Amino acid sequence: MINIDFEKGGGLVPVVVQDYKTLEVLMVAYMNKESWELTKKTGIAHYWSRSRNSLWKKGESSGNIQEVKEIRIDCDNDTILLKVNQIGGASCHLGYRSCFFRYLKGDELVIDIPKIFNPEEKYGR
Amino acid sequence: MINIDFEKGGGLVPVVVQDYKTLEVLMVAYMNKESWELTKKTGIAHYWSRSRNSLWKKGESSGNIQEVKEIRIDCDNDTILLKVNQIGGASCHLGYRSCFFRYLKGDELVIDIPKIFNPEEKYGR
Repeated sequence: MINIDFEKGGGLVPVVVQDYKTLEVLMVAYMNKESWELTKKTGIAHYWSRSRNSLWKKGESSGNIQEVKEIRIDCDNDTILLKVNQIGGASCHLGYRSCFFRYLKGDELVIDIPKIFNPEEKYGR
Repeated sequence: MINIDFEKGGGLVPVVVQDYKTLEVLMVAYMNKESWELTKKTGIAHYWSRSRNSLWKKGESSGNIQEVKEIRIDCDNDTILLKVNQIGGASCHLGYRSCFFRYLKGDELVIDIPKIFNPEEKYGR
């Protein structure tokens, strides 16, 4: 049995999302108990959106859902790691493959990850 | 210039720590502004311990420090990704290479990552 410690983070735990093939870290999101149960039940990643304060099926509007290939839990039972198949190839709402599309070079941030889609076209903004 | 958003998380941001060669996710920790500045300045990972409520130079007692090879920042500037060289080969205080040493199989957690050291010997507990 697994008992995720949702209490420590006020009902939410951080979730690291990794590409199941390349092991690239795609994003970090949060889950509450409901999204955790839904993710396990459906095999599709569900999170809790802190900005919208609501359940969030990743890719619901963009079509870029995440098929869960593996679930890992850390030693303290307060962090989840998902290995996923990222449909559409982009996890970032800005159109990049990964939300971590910039690395630190001196004091500057440099983009070194391809943009897969144009968010203005995708979301009509 | 980088401005990490420490405010959103009450002064702390989550940090995903990845092995710079294998890309295995080793752990998730937290940084405040001081540990962030120290990490950049020294090239050695420093965190904020939420349990001890103090600055935490990872590996200070065990010797298993983390040499920072790359720093990445996410699209919202509220999550940090470190690629590190984990000295000693184990990042988890339980002696495993990664804190995510268990995966979910049905409703059970299964260990599939080697134990590098015995924490009772290492920390004298």
